[in-house]
Amino acid sequence: MSTILTKRSDDYSQWYNDLVLKSGLADYSAVKGCMVIKPHGFALWELMRDQLDKMFKETGHQNAYFPLLIPKSFLSREASHVEGFAKECAVVTHYRLKNDPNGNGIIVDKDAKLEEELIVRPTSETIIWNTYKDWIQSYRDLPILINQWANVVRWEMRTRLFLRTTEFLWQEGHTAHATKEEAIEETTKMLEVYATFAEDFMALPVLKGVKSANERFAGAEDTYCIEAMMQDGKALQAGTSHFLGQNFAKAFEVQFRDKENKLDYVWATSWGVSTRLIGALVMAHSDDNGLVLPPKIAPIQVVIIPILNKNPETVAKLNQVADDLISGLKAAGIRCKYDNDDNTRPGWKYAEYELKGVPVRIVLGARDIENGNIEIMRRDMLTKEMVPVDNALEYTKTLLGTIHDSMFNKARDFRDSNIRKVDTWEEFVKTIEEVPGFISAHWDGTPETEEQIKEATKATIRCIPLDNVQEEGKCVFSGKHSTQRVIFARAY
Amino acid sequence: MSTILTKRSDDYSQWYNDLVLKSGLADYSAVKGCMVIKPHGFALWELMRDQLDKMFKETGHQNAYFPLLIPKSFLSREASHVEGFAKECAVVTHYRLKNDPNGNGIIVDKDAKLEEELIVRPTSETIIWNTYKDWIQSYRDLPILINQWANVVRWEMRTRLFLRTTEFLWQEGHTAHATKEEAIEETTKMLEVYATFAEDFMALPVLKGVKSANERFAGAEDTYCIEAMMQDGKALQAGTSHFLGQNFAKAFEVQFRDKENKLDYVWATSWGVSTRLIGALVMAHSDDNGLVLPPKIAPIQVVIIPILNKNPETVAKLNQVADDLISGLKAAGIRCKYDNDDNTRPGWKYAEYELKGVPVRIVLGARDIENGNIEIMRRDMLTKEMVPVDNALEYTKTLLGTIHDSMFNKARDFRDSNIRKVDTWEEFVKTIEEVPGFISAHWDGTPETEEQIKEATKATIRCIPLDNVQEEGKCVFSGKHSTQRVIFARAY
Repeated sequence: MSTILTKRSDDYSQWYNDLVLKSGLADYSAVKGCMVIKPHGFALWELMRDQLDKMFKETGHQNAYFPLLIPKSFLSREASHVEGFAKECAVVTHYRLKNDPNGNGIIVDKDAKLEEELIVRPTSETIIWNTYKDWIQSYRDLPILINQWANVVRWEMRTRLFLRTTEFLWQEGHTAHATKEEAIEETTKMLEVYATFAEDFMALPVLKGVKSANERFAGAEDTYCIEAMMQDGKALQAGTSHFLGQNFAKAFEVQFRDKENKLDYVWATSWGVSTRLIGALVMAHSDDNGLVLPPKIAPIQVVIIPILNKNPETVAKLNQVADDLISGLKAAGIRCKYDNDDNTRPGWKYAEYELKGVPVRIVLGARDIENGNIEIMRRDMLTKEMVPVDNALEYTKTLLGTIHDSMFNKARDFRDSNIRKVDTWEEFVKTIEEVPGFISAHWDGTPETEEQIKEATKATIRCIPLDNVQEEGKCVFSGKHSTQRVIFARAY
Repeated sequence: MSTILTKRSDDYSQWYNDLVLKSGLADYSAVKGCMVIKPHGFALWELMRDQLDKMFKETGHQNAYFPLLIPKSFLSREASHVEGFAKECAVVTHYRLKNDPNGNGIIVDKDAKLEEELIVRPTSETIIWNTYKDWIQSYRDLPILINQWANVVRWEMRTRLFLRTTEFLWQEGHTAHATKEEAIEETTKMLEVYATFAEDFMALPVLKGVKSANERFAGAEDTYCIEAMMQDGKALQAGTSHFLGQNFAKAFEVQFRDKENKLDYVWATSWGVSTRLIGALVMAHSDDNGLVLPPKIAPIQVVIIPILNKNPETVAKLNQVADDLISGLKAAGIRCKYDNDDNTRPGWKYAEYELKGVPVRIVLGARDIENGNIEIMRRDMLTKEMVPVDNALEYTKTLLGTIHDSMFNKARDFRDSNIRKVDTWEEFVKTIEEVPGFISAHWDGTPETEEQIKEATKATIRCIPLDNVQEEGKCVFSGKHSTQRVIFARAY
C-alpha cells in the first residue's frame, strides 16, 4: 500500500498532492483553483475549528456573520489595504442570467448590470468597519470582540490543495478598542492563542514573531505571526494577528467619545487562521505511508480491527473484547471506530487506516486474546506492542498523549537542528541553495535589503522572533549595522 | 421598555423588523439585500446548527465542503433546475481590479475577463453532482450521505431580515443511492429529522406534507416540506427535502454498476434548512415585549439579577446564593448568566433580557432571601413565582421543560384553531381576505387551478399533508372531482 504514494525523497511536492488526494482530505474541483474538502478533511477541520472556537470564546469573543459581497468602493478606502487586496479577486458585475435567444443555454443579462460592482470578500476589514461605524458611539460600546467563520476568495494563479486555493475557509477576528495599549494586548493575546493551538493540538512547533514591513498585512501597523518548518525545510506561515492602529477607523470614520467626552478614532485588530493549517499538518508530520495525524484533532483516534474467522465462538469473543474496550474509550471521550466489515481483509484495512493517519490501531487476534493480549500499533512510529487485555484501555489512553508529545518533540528537534546561523552573504546563498531549513542572520532593517535578498535567493524574512536576542552585528547582505538576527527562509 | 417596539396589533410587519433589529439578532448592511447576523442572532444559529448537525451525524451523514463558485454552463445542464435557479443570481465575470488611470479609485480590469462566467452558488446540486461523477463507479461507492453548511446567494428584489435575504446561511444535504426506494426513504427520513427539530427544539409545530408541482424544487420529482403557521396566520416553509429521482445523475452522467454488473443512473436527494428558521422562531413565539426564545436553543437560558445595595454583607449574601445556583445550573448543562453589573439598574436589565428572550429570569432580593425565597419569572407567560431558595435549582430545571411544552402547545393550539375547512369559492375568498390562518379545501390536482387560485387570492398550496384523509369532494375553484383536501395559505 505504501507504494501508492510518491516517496518524499523522490518528489516532496508530488508526495504531498498524492497524499491529500488519496487519503481523502480533498479533491480538485471543476472550478480553477477551488477545491472540494472531502469528509475526512472536513472532519479534521471541524475538530480544529471547534477547539479554536472554544479558545476564542474563553478569551471573551463572540461569533457573528457579515456579508460575502463587498462594494468595490469600500476596498479603496484604506490606502495600503487596496494595494494588497483589491487586485486579484472575484468581481460580481451582474445579478441575472437569461435564456440565450439563439438557444445556446443561458447568458448574462446585460440589463442586470450592477451600478457598483461587488467583490467576493478577500478579507472583511472593510465591510466590518463600515458596520462598526453604526455600532460605536461611546467608550461604553467598546471593546467589540467579534470573530467570523467564513469562506473567502483571493484569485490565485498558482494553487496547491489547502496551501493556496482561490476559495478557502477561515476565521477572521475583528476587534475594536478604546486605547492603543488594549488593541496591542489583544493582538499579542490572539497570537498566543494561535501558538498554543498549533503546539498543544496540532503538535506543530511554531516561532512567534513580528513581520518585517514587506511582509506586513495590507493596512496593518504591525503583523504578528506564527511560523512553522515543514519537512522539506521550507517555512509555512500558520497564523497572523494584526495590530491595525486607527487605519480602518479613519478610513470608515469610526469615532467614539471617551470617558472625558473627547472624540477619538477607534483602535483595531484582526487575526486569522485558515484551512491552510491542514496543509501545514500534513507537511509537518506525515510519512511515505500516509497521514500522521496529531491525536487531539484526529477524526478517528483509535481504530479496532478484529481478525475474524468462521468460528462463531471466536467472533463472539472478539466482539466482546471490542465492546468492552470501545465503551471504555468512549467513556474517556476518545473517538474510536470498530471496523469488523468482513468484505475487506485486515491487511487492506491496516494500509487504509495508516493512509488516513489514525494515531492508534488495535488488532484483536484470536490467539493473542487467548493468551490475554492485544496488539497495539502507534501510527507515528509504526511500532507495535503486545499489551495485556486488562491493561489495554489505560495503555491506549496514555499512548495518545505519548504520541502527541513524541510528534511535537520530533518536529521541534527537526526544526531546531535546521535553523542555521549564517554570517556572510556567500554562506547565505550556499546554505539557502543546498541545505533545507531556516537561516538566522543579521539584517540592516531596510525593505530594500530584504527585497534584494528575496530577488537573489527567493528567501524572505519569515519573522523577527518575539524573544529575540539583541546583539551587535553586520547585515549579511549590505554589511550595515544591525542589532539582531532575523529568520530567513523560502516559504509556502 | 415595551414601548420601543411597534405592537403586533398595530403593524405586524413593523413589529418583526423592530424586534429583529432591537433585540440584537441582525442588522442591515451596506450591501442591498444582505444582512449582518449579530452576536445574539449568531449564538442562536450556532445552537440550532449544532443540534441539527448532531441529528445529521446520528443518521449517518458526514460534512464536506464544495466550491462557492459554479461554472455558468453547469446550471443549464438540468432543464428544470435552470428555470428555477439560474436567473436571479450573482454573476462573477472578472477576476481582477486595477487602479483607475484617471485616479478615481479602482476599476474592473477589462483584461481579466473570465472565459466562462462563474455563479455564486444559489444551491449546490450541480457542482456536487459534477463531483460525484468522479466518486461513484460501483454500488460499493453508494450510498454517499453528505451535508454541507454554507452560504448561498439568490438575488432578491424584496428582502426581509432572515426571511428573505440575498445571501443566507444554510445546510444542504446531498445524497446518492443505488435504488429509488432507498432515495425516497432518505428523503422522508430527513423530513422527519426536520420536523423533530422544529417541534422538539424550536417548539414550533409543523405540518408535514408534499408540495404540489407548482411549488416543487426546480429539478425534483417530489418536494417534501414542513410548514408552520406564524402569529399573523401566514404560512412559513421551514424546511424542504427533495427526492430528485435520476435527474441530476442524468444531467451529469453519473452511472454506477450494480451487484449484477448492470449500469444504471444514481438516485438522488437533497434537503435543506436555513437562517430563515430564525425568522420563523421570532414570528411564531415572540410578543410585544420582545423575543420569546424556546429554552433548548436560547443562548442564555437563565439570567440571574441581584438587587444590590451598599451593604457589603447583603452583597456577599446575594453573591453566595447566586454562586450556589450557578454551579448547580452549570452542572446540569444549563446556559446561565449572572448580571451583577452595577452600572445599570435592575429595571433596565429586566426589559433588556425580556427583549432578548431569555426564558427564565431569577431576581435575588435581600428581603426575599432573608425570607428564604427567590423570585423566578418565566418569559413566555411573564408570570413570577416566589420559590424557596433550597428548591430554586430543581424548580428552574423543571421550568425550562415546562416553558418548552407550553410554548409548543400554545403555538399548536393557535394553528389548529386557525385551519378552516372551506367548501365554496365564495367562502374561500372571504376567508382568505378576512380571517388569518390556513384553509383546508378540495383541489382538482391541476397546476392551472392552483395558479388561478394564487392569482385571485395570493394563496398557494402549502402542502398536501402526509397523513391526509382521503375523501370524495369537489374542487373549491373548478368544481371538478377531488379525493382530498390540501392546505392553502398566504405565505412568507
